[in-house]
Amino acid sequence: MAKAELVRANEAASTREAFRRILRGVASTVTIITTRWEGRRYGMVATAAMSVSFEPPSFMVAINRSASAYRALEAQGAFAVNIIGRTDEHVAKGFAEAPGEERFRSGHWLDYLEDGEFENLPYLDSCQAAIFCKTAKTAIFGTHTLFIGEVHDILAHGRSHPLLYLDGGFGGYVASPKRDSHLERDNSLMPCPL
Amino acid sequence: MAKAELVRANEAASTREAFRRILRGVASTVTIITTRWEGRRYGMVATAAMSVSFEPPSFMVAINRSASAYRALEAQGAFAVNIIGRTDEHVAKGFAEAPGEERFRSGHWLDYLEDGEFENLPYLDSCQAAIFCKTAKTAIFGTHTLFIGEVHDILAHGRSHPLLYLDGGFGGYVASPKRDSHLERDNSLMPCPL
Repeated sequence: MAKAELVRANEAASTREAFRRILRGVASTVTIITTRWEGRRYGMVATAAMSVSFEPPSFMVAINRSASAYRALEAQGAFAVNIIGRTDEHVAKGFAEAPGEERFRSGHWLDYLEDGEFENLPYLDSCQAAIFCKTAKTAIFGTHTLFIGEVHDILAHGRSHPLLYLDGGFGGYVASPKRDSHLERDNSLMPCPL
Repeated sequence: MAKAELVRANEAASTREAFRRILRGVASTVTIITTRWEGRRYGMVATAAMSVSFEPPSFMVAINRSASAYRALEAQGAFAVNIIGRTDEHVAKGFAEAPGEERFRSGHWLDYLEDGEFENLPYLDSCQAAIFCKTAKTAIFGTHTLFIGEVHDILAHGRSHPLLYLDGGFGGYVASPKRDSHLERDNSLMPCPL
């Protein structure tokens, strides 16, 4: 085993640096969070996103209050979570590099129309799934605001090849080899991730 | 492209079912959240865990209030986030399947001693990183409570081979092939996941 390196709390700068470094080693599914405000589309690539509860179905994102899409997200009170598949790696890259409305030039973006309630939230036609949420609760912590969205609609393709982000690069998931029938059976005992 | 399947908000049961299904297609790094209360160790496998902000460094988990470790987490006000590496897949499996204190039989668990403040939080010796947090804020939503922990200490190994969970099984990360130097250069432009 590699030697452990203990970073102490009283060395604040190195705690932050160590935190940043270990987060690079935590793989996440890539999402694009979108909204619309006063007719304009806003969005950002986010890996700090996760489900909260099944009852009610809810999904949460942590947004830096200095992000360009922050005000629109706050004002609109609704957002779409686009779960990005591996085949859309170029869309995520394009989205991350472009400013403002130009972000939507990469990929085929549509408007979600639902009785006017969601004011045409943009979603990526080819995404693995789009989750349409209304902001039900917010919580401020440090530089970020948590937006907890209650899930109102889902648009899903039947795929499970999410685009992942790790160590500053993109990739995908590879299943562990099944070692024997005992382990295979054990898989079914895994609790739901929630 | 596969045909999209639109699940409508007014069919509540199918929205929940669709939500559950698409979450199976969102890959996450496996963590084990641990705490100690009145001398006993508590813990659970969690994939609903993510960083919140860098200032202050903070990490969050969503815990079902019916989980066996919930009361201890709430009472203790401190927890450890063990980022699990691929080589510890058997530990995650053992942990998920056993009840209570028996969960700690799989893997080599140590106690984190720091001026008595953390009351000996258990951490997995071989984990990729252990993040020791004090609960700074909680928020209730639906069946779950969000525990936002301020990071006080980090114990890290220099590895980035996180254990992932997708579609009810375990696996790992594989980087996308570098297609050309242009794309390689683009990687460096990716914003930080926070």
